[in-house]
Amino acid sequence: MNKSRVEAFSDGVIAILITIMVLELAVPEGAELSALEPLIPVFLTYVLSFVYLGIYWNNHHHLLQAAERINGTILWANLHLLFWLSMVPFITGWMGHNPFAPVPTAVYGVVMLLAAVAYWILQSAIVAHHGPHSRLATAIGRDVKGKISPLLYASAIPLAFVNQWMSDTIYVIVALMWLVPDRRIESQFRAKRV
Amino acid sequence: MNKSRVEAFSDGVIAILITIMVLELAVPEGAELSALEPLIPVFLTYVLSFVYLGIYWNNHHHLLQAAERINGTILWANLHLLFWLSMVPFITGWMGHNPFAPVPTAVYGVVMLLAAVAYWILQSAIVAHHGPHSRLATAIGRDVKGKISPLLYASAIPLAFVNQWMSDTIYVIVALMWLVPDRRIESQFRAKRV
Amino acid sequence: MNKSRVEAFSDGVIAILITIMVLELAVPEGAELSALEPLIPVFLTYVLSFVYLGIYWNNHHHLLQAAERINGTILWANLHLLFWLSMVPFITGWMGHNPFAPVPTAVYGVVMLLAAVAYWILQSAIVAHHGPHSRLATAIGRDVKGKISPLLYASAIPLAFVNQWMSDTIYVIVALMWLVPDRRIESQFRAKRV
Amino acid sequence: MNKSRVEAFSDGVIAILITIMVLELAVPEGAELSALEPLIPVFLTYVLSFVYLGIYWNNHHHLLQAAERINGTILWANLHLLFWLSMVPFITGWMGHNPFAPVPTAVYGVVMLLAAVAYWILQSAIVAHHGPHSRLATAIGRDVKGKISPLLYASAIPLAFVNQWMSDTIYVIVALMWLVPDRRIESQFRAKRV
Repeated sequence: MNKSRVEAFSDGVIAILITIMVLELAVPEGAELSALEPLIPVFLTYVLSFVYLGIYWNNHHHLLQAAERINGTILWANLHLLFWLSMVPFITGWMGHNPFAPVPTAVYGVVMLLAAVAYWILQSAIVAHHGPHSRLATAIGRDVKGKISPLLYASAIPLAFVNQWMSDTIYVIVALMWLVPDRRIESQFRAKRV
Repeated sequence: MNKSRVEAFSDGVIAILITIMVLELAVPEGAELSALEPLIPVFLTYVLSFVYLGIYWNNHHHLLQAAERINGTILWANLHLLFWLSMVPFITGWMGHNPFAPVPTAVYGVVMLLAAVAYWILQSAIVAHHGPHSRLATAIGRDVKGKISPLLYASAIPLAFVNQWMSDTIYVIVALMWLVPDRRIESQFRAKRV
Repeated sequence: MNKSRVEAFSDGVIAILITIMVLELAVPEGAELSALEPLIPVFLTYVLSFVYLGIYWNNHHHLLQAAERINGTILWANLHLLFWLSMVPFITGWMGHNPFAPVPTAVYGVVMLLAAVAYWILQSAIVAHHGPHSRLATAIGRDVKGKISPLLYASAIPLAFVNQWMSDTIYVIVALMWLVPDRRIESQFRAKRV
Repeated sequence: MNKSRVEAFSDGVIAILITIMVLELAVPEGAELSALEPLIPVFLTYVLSFVYLGIYWNNHHHLLQAAERINGTILWANLHLLFWLSMVPFITGWMGHNPFAPVPTAVYGVVMLLAAVAYWILQSAIVAHHGPHSRLATAIGRDVKGKISPLLYASAIPLAFVNQWMSDTIYVIVALMWLVPDRRIESQFRAKRV
């Protein structure tokens, strides 16, 4: 199967998601600076989700580059990930327009948790197709960040009903944790080449 | 002619369709969990249509990969398929917002039927260009699923006026039937390589 | 310069234009078949514009494939063409919602005329870069269809104020005339290879 | 790392931005020519922003083509640039709908200034990765246009509160200044090949 077409399709979907999300930033009625004020939470949520989608694109880029073969299971695991990522513009708009409400803040965590699980399924499907002793499996290793993130999202969901700032803080922390690109695969490959 | 550009254009259109469909999930007014309730049918219809577009992308991926040559007829048969797929966001929104109405449920079947016919025309155009004894023609073989699907869609259209749940069930069954990726072409090619 | 990136960018823009145009087909309020009735002119205009954008993609595909080199002038001539094509969703929506009004019908012709002129400029820029005796220049030849189309659009503009059906007929005729893919370049190249 | 996927993703995002911007040109209510009148400032702002995004795509095209290697810093510098470019449809809509208001005109300059700074960061990250004596670093040279543009944007921001036509004029001048494609890198590479 053709890996490059899977990459191109995924890039297309993520590029469109990251871009149509900006449509939630509706042009305000007034022309004063104060007209932008109600947009501040929408803007900040947009920044957060933009970073998240950027992280997913980045990690997806590394993961698929390390993959040598694709099969039907991987194709559908990839579409499953894209499905949950496609919920990001919706939940970004809902949380952005209701920044102090617990339910949208919790549902943001639910979407992020399901996307993280979908990424883990995709990664597992690729590892299973390449074998447990493959270069890719070694490169992923213990996958600490990949295991901590779902736990943090899962804790952010109930915390949103205590104080939504705690959940928001967790979302920012997970994003910052991932902003460092996934150098494991890169370095592993570089090491092997030596 | 350049097959890769046809693939890239089709991927682009399908990626955009699968993504703008999510715009039908309008951000709700309220911030309570109950505000999501009226969105449940829209969400479920979105899931169904997402799976359908994923199936089309998947099968299109296999079909074009097996094709060795492209001509003008194939280009237009491909655009014709993309045209009917471009109706999916519209009909998804209409059926999602009117989950218990017979007409949108029937029109969903009409769009799916026309897309299936368009796919069949595209496949036939590619086979005709490669010859009846080509590897591709052998790989497609009797094409049982491709022949049953239009019949099922055609039966779902009148059934929507009896009980729309019967049509919905048929749409889900056809989707599940196709979720197994089109291994025929793959296995045929693998066999030939041995 | 990298021709494939110009092709990819153009494909992306045309794929998005052809797809967001469908957003003009707003989901109707009612769930009866009669709710689709006011959408019929929008749908028919959508079909027409879909075919036009398909034709542009198709001819653009052939033109750039025949091009061997790209320069800055060609890049901007290409962006200029994409600009006028980006007006197609707007004018499709306006004409579709006002099917019997002369001004939108005339402005549809203006947009099509400007897009045709932009295509002609792009073609001329590519020919100029390859030389008057290049394979490409010979392949384009007298370019009869490329010269007739602007004349037909130009005549459709004033005719819209006489009877908009005359303009609509002209738009359909030009589309049908182009539906035959641009075999000139193809056949020329095939001949040369022999 | 895979440079072509970074190019494809960036092309995708810029292609979508340049296209969804046209959605700000909402189909007018009336069918008279006068119905288009209030759209004139939106149209002109669209033209300006289309040219700006075209310039960014063009220069980005040259910059990445000259780059031989990509690293994590470059990936994120690129996403940072795409983030500010994703603000262009919003600010185009706001300035287009309020053509004589100082705040939107000034904020247009702010977005353009931040995008220019983001481009400069991306360029610096690529140069840093290739070394100060690389072909790329030599090709960029003194980068006069890249240094003047932010100064002009920065001056247009306060001038919007004096007279917004002064700022508009500056925006047009910067666009015209860049319309000449970035021949430095091209000519440098051509010279080296000789």
